[in-house]
Amino acid sequence: MLDVVFYEMFEEEKEAIKRFLPKDVKAQFIAQTVQGQNKSFPPAKVISIRTQSRIPPSWAPHLKGILTRSQGYDHLASYCRESGIHIPCGYLGDYCSRAVAEQAVIAMMVLLRKLKKQIRVFEIFSRDRLTGAECRGRHALIVGVGCIGAQIVDIAQGLRMEVKGVDIAPKLKDIEYVSLNEGIRWADVVFCACCLTEQTRGMLHYRVLRKARKGLIFINIARGEISPIEDLERLLSEGILGGLSLDVYEQESAVADYFKGHRRSANAVIKKILKLKDRDGVLFTPHNAFNTQEALEAKARLSAQAVQYFLQKETFPLAVPNC
Amino acid sequence: MLDVVFYEMFEEEKEAIKRFLPKDVKAQFIAQTVQGQNKSFPPAKVISIRTQSRIPPSWAPHLKGILTRSQGYDHLASYCRESGIHIPCGYLGDYCSRAVAEQAVIAMMVLLRKLKKQIRVFEIFSRDRLTGAECRGRHALIVGVGCIGAQIVDIAQGLRMEVKGVDIAPKLKDIEYVSLNEGIRWADVVFCACCLTEQTRGMLHYRVLRKARKGLIFINIARGEISPIEDLERLLSEGILGGLSLDVYEQESAVADYFKGHRRSANAVIKKILKLKDRDGVLFTPHNAFNTQEALEAKARLSAQAVQYFLQKETFPLAVPNC
Repeated sequence: MLDVVFYEMFEEEKEAIKRFLPKDVKAQFIAQTVQGQNKSFPPAKVISIRTQSRIPPSWAPHLKGILTRSQGYDHLASYCRESGIHIPCGYLGDYCSRAVAEQAVIAMMVLLRKLKKQIRVFEIFSRDRLTGAECRGRHALIVGVGCIGAQIVDIAQGLRMEVKGVDIAPKLKDIEYVSLNEGIRWADVVFCACCLTEQTRGMLHYRVLRKARKGLIFINIARGEISPIEDLERLLSEGILGGLSLDVYEQESAVADYFKGHRRSANAVIKKILKLKDRDGVLFTPHNAFNTQEALEAKARLSAQAVQYFLQKETFPLAVPNC
Repeated sequence: MLDVVFYEMFEEEKEAIKRFLPKDVKAQFIAQTVQGQNKSFPPAKVISIRTQSRIPPSWAPHLKGILTRSQGYDHLASYCRESGIHIPCGYLGDYCSRAVAEQAVIAMMVLLRKLKKQIRVFEIFSRDRLTGAECRGRHALIVGVGCIGAQIVDIAQGLRMEVKGVDIAPKLKDIEYVSLNEGIRWADVVFCACCLTEQTRGMLHYRVLRKARKGLIFINIARGEISPIEDLERLLSEGILGGLSLDVYEQESAVADYFKGHRRSANAVIKKILKLKDRDGVLFTPHNAFNTQEALEAKARLSAQAVQYFLQKETFPLAVPNC
């Protein structure tokens, strides 16, 4: 009998988890999602997924515990609520905030320095219209100063930028918190780093961002739904945005499916992405900001610890509320 | 009669210098290099170049002054030495150290996070083999801790890297200085930021760099001649280098001529560049690290001041030694 089955497992993660898991834990590692494997009965009483598995309702009575290997746990809360059965569920603590923050800052610097164009015109060794802007002294606004936002603050201050934050619950002592409108008018760069909630959905829309100084750099490493791409495209075309970097997208699973596979029937979001992606002032990455050796290592360690803890105590170190 | 002719002038720089130069100074602005224009006689007694012009030896007797619009002046020192004629030459004070340092750090981050590949595989929204490395905690070795090197130290410390320096005359208090060999063995990233002198020419060659940890990131924003591209290519092919970024090149005027124009008869350096330039782990930029709004403004001001000063006093505020 298996102790635990891990779904949605890629090679590097599997190798790392194996290193952290005690030898006496009988574990199986599956690359597919739960629905991808399509089994009528769970292969173990404890399973671990990421965010793309859909667990059949019929599995619920046979499961003793579910671990999501992510910081978000909305999908497990929904599963428990909908199945009406109490299943202890766990999630992971902060494992990738620095990774995400560093990528957000790289994106900013790449846009400030027109690096895509620098690479492109290397072919003609030309420096016309290639003048960039320095970070030092510029104004960075962090919208959502949680785990990731706090790391962006740390890095931006290290680059000697001026930094302000927008947050419903200010926690940092060494930055000034301002209202969203005040911050947008002040900023040279806006980092979207807040959670997606009903309050933040669509929050950074056209009418909010158009108050910015001409040439604003906008970076979203949080969730695409917070800032509609239709609005961002309009702001670019009007010259209000001078640079745009996205690592996350509205309707991201449809976007990923489109680019990964069929490339048929692009929806409105995908059409905007296709229109913008090759521009010099636009940097799109495939939801990869989390992906560093350090973050993968931390994630594997936290995952192995959570499973081991559960096998001993039938509860997770970080338990999903109301499950 | 023209007072001064500026070569290697790009649009933004021209506009800025015109703003700073008094109206009574008769100046001409030429985008080409001196050899690109191919004249047998200098168009003015005072000329200003950047680093890619090769001034014909036959011009020497007719020149009263040469200003290089760069912080480095090795090319003018060579010209005077080789022509055997005393020509007052000037160079610029620090106008772009922060700009160069920021670009050096961007290059490092782009390579650590495989950003070229991230952009490329956005097309398939894939994250396979896309795991990068974080800056925080990594070891940065600055070879040559002068104006630019000191700014790289500042930024790297701001990113919470560990930093050591190599320099013949240590000046900073808050970093440890080590020997080149000790530093290379310790480093995750090496920044070449020293002047080109007879001591540093070829200094970062194969046998020195091969002592590095596997996967070293190497960045050169100083002069190509300090680290031969033939050696760098060998280190890449042997997996000792994990990433390479160059903003400067050996025989750079020939490199620039090749890419700007004829694309005929590539020399050995150009052949290596052509071989490497499109790789994911390689980032080549067209000697553009200096090119920010902040640096251009400072450079235009200093250039205009230096020319004006020379026209009045026949000497430059900063004179190249032994010219």
